[in-house]
Amino acid sequence: MTHAPDLPVLRLQEGRDRRVRNGHPWIYSNEIQMTPAVKALPPGALVRVNDSQGSTLGLFGFNPHTLIAARLMTHDPRVSIDTGLLATRLRRALELRERYFNTPHYRLIHAEADGFPGLVVDRYGDVVVVQLNTAMMEALRAAILVALQEVLQPRAIVLRNDSPSRTLEGLELGTEIALADPALDLTKPIEIIENGARFLVDVLEGQKTGWFYDQRDNRAAAAHLAKGARVLDVYTYAGGFGVQAGLAGASEVVLVDRSRPALDRGLAAAELNGLGKVSAMQGDGVFVMEQLAGDKERFGIVIADPPAFVKAKKDLNVGLRGYRKMIRAAAALVAPGGFLLAASCSHAVDTEAFANEMRAGLAKAGRSGRILRQAGAGPDHPVHPFLPESAYLKAILVQLD
Amino acid sequence: MTHAPDLPVLRLQEGRDRRVRNGHPWIYSNEIQMTPAVKALPPGALVRVNDSQGSTLGLFGFNPHTLIAARLMTHDPRVSIDTGLLATRLRRALELRERYFNTPHYRLIHAEADGFPGLVVDRYGDVVVVQLNTAMMEALRAAILVALQEVLQPRAIVLRNDSPSRTLEGLELGTEIALADPALDLTKPIEIIENGARFLVDVLEGQKTGWFYDQRDNRAAAAHLAKGARVLDVYTYAGGFGVQAGLAGASEVVLVDRSRPALDRGLAAAELNGLGKVSAMQGDGVFVMEQLAGDKERFGIVIADPPAFVKAKKDLNVGLRGYRKMIRAAAALVAPGGFLLAASCSHAVDTEAFANEMRAGLAKAGRSGRILRQAGAGPDHPVHPFLPESAYLKAILVQLD
Repeated sequence: MTHAPDLPVLRLQEGRDRRVRNGHPWIYSNEIQMTPAVKALPPGALVRVNDSQGSTLGLFGFNPHTLIAARLMTHDPRVSIDTGLLATRLRRALELRERYFNTPHYRLIHAEADGFPGLVVDRYGDVVVVQLNTAMMEALRAAILVALQEVLQPRAIVLRNDSPSRTLEGLELGTEIALADPALDLTKPIEIIENGARFLVDVLEGQKTGWFYDQRDNRAAAAHLAKGARVLDVYTYAGGFGVQAGLAGASEVVLVDRSRPALDRGLAAAELNGLGKVSAMQGDGVFVMEQLAGDKERFGIVIADPPAFVKAKKDLNVGLRGYRKMIRAAAALVAPGGFLLAASCSHAVDTEAFANEMRAGLAKAGRSGRILRQAGAGPDHPVHPFLPESAYLKAILVQLD
Repeated sequence: MTHAPDLPVLRLQEGRDRRVRNGHPWIYSNEIQMTPAVKALPPGALVRVNDSQGSTLGLFGFNPHTLIAARLMTHDPRVSIDTGLLATRLRRALELRERYFNTPHYRLIHAEADGFPGLVVDRYGDVVVVQLNTAMMEALRAAILVALQEVLQPRAIVLRNDSPSRTLEGLELGTEIALADPALDLTKPIEIIENGARFLVDVLEGQKTGWFYDQRDNRAAAAHLAKGARVLDVYTYAGGFGVQAGLAGASEVVLVDRSRPALDRGLAAAELNGLGKVSAMQGDGVFVMEQLAGDKERFGIVIADPPAFVKAKKDLNVGLRGYRKMIRAAAALVAPGGFLLAASCSHAVDTEAFANEMRAGLAKAGRSGRILRQAGAGPDHPVHPFLPESAYLKAILVQLD
């Protein structure tokens, strides 16, 4: 599609090539020689980036309006950024997922780590949901769709381009069906299997792409402890933790969420899996937990996996206090010897900060115990070695005395 | 055995009670009012600790000669630190392990996190290996042995009191058989099962307590990717990663270690598990890897899990360079699309520092890829929430392009 010799050339400021040479995939706007011609490039343009001496570092996608101005596609300037290259990367990602999972339900592309800066592809069997979160991915939209069809032959491709990161990149928000088998009704939930449990996904109206595959391994870790336990799954969304705990032999499961449609999908999933004793409470997580504590309810396992409390760095302190309050409320509901799994998916809250709120929350609840597991997302959410900050998910599993 | 009213009383300096009240289990020597009477207490003495106003914070084990001067046994001063209490804590720890593991092969007590500051108990079925790493645990030796017999009825208890941390506490080094069924020959290796694979443990002469249960989950993660792969297990010790990869269907396994007896146990384990195509190379890990690279050997999975390169903080920089060199050498042996699992068990090397050496090592090897897993030890090595620095094990699994 696009050959390197035709690409516009950008030069870095002197001495700014080292990080990229070491393997970092981003160039910041203040590292580039911003000539009028460079500034006039359309957002998402593919460019060749040279160091200040003129030797080539690689091919990048460029956005003149963002702080992260260039994102690496390849170090090799002879490579064509075309459907062939994209299909090769999709196949590599597919092969990795197929080593891990025996049903076609996983995150297929997790942005930079899979060689697609800013692209998310979640696979729900025959239905593929895509987020084009950078101007470069938006510019490559047609080639990405062709490559996806070539590699996966899906019955439908849905573009969930409603993520706030698109606004940063100057892109419009919206949901779009890029491809659909007319016999397929996308307004009906799609069934997936995770850790052997059946779930229902709303790809058009659900949160993000419709399901959170990132918690797969943490759900398995909680389910592993669930036999005979009374389980409270707060911020359950569509039943992920609770239904898997139920299938693993929990004596009772209570799902809590603010969203009635999400809870209904959770209850429907419980039924699909043949579970009894699964109930739902609609409401704010902390509010419901404080009510349950007032009623002297106790659980063998409490899961608290909320939406991001910190959406921007300026909200960090308020968000951290939110996590502390949540952990305190959750810990108060754990029976002696029981377990608490708390998670944060806030990018701005790092592992140490979240562990700190765990300590503080336990102290406020007057509970002691031991950390059994600290983990992030599963292997279908790989992390680029040079972007450790992209490991947004932090989960801590503790046993409380 | 010992009742709180009889215990010597220590007072903290003013304002030094807050950390303990929040749940931290240690008091440093400069936080204590060091009267002559306090200084004269025997190492390991149980004491009652009061704040500067005289109100009681709990019962601690005290050592007047160490920086960590007091270690929490209980906040409740009415509790007796006796075999009954120790047996209760052992049973709680046992119950947790029995939730996770279906054979009696695990770390039963992991120090502070299990309520035994400085105690390690590894269980090899009927044989229990103990490390008393603090003066308090040494002082409680008899009660610990009675409690272990009461809860586990082992055929043998071996004291591997040869850990350098005992020197810090002013304790002598040595190995001792505290209890043994005369029909049992402890000089013969003991068979254990980990993740379904059979292994041989030398409890008298092996490293540490004889086996490293801490890598159990990481071994499973590597084995999960092993089908059809040629696997190199560097610093294998007694075959842990390699044999499990072989059992998971690796096409060939090469074990590397400096210790001939350890390699022999690894090869014997391969035979016990009915594996063919398992070989051993004796030598230094990095040296052997560089030789293999010179011979253009390539592997689908390379594991590099060395003994601690950083044994004291002053060795940090040298040790970090050692990890970088090791990762560079290991990465050079990974076939395109293959996997590298590198680990550090150095206390002084934190997660971020080790990830940094992973980045640098990959850059030096000219390899890019993605992190699939970052994990510590398994759940039989729990972490006290207020001692995050005790999470010594860091493992990173990457796929390389």
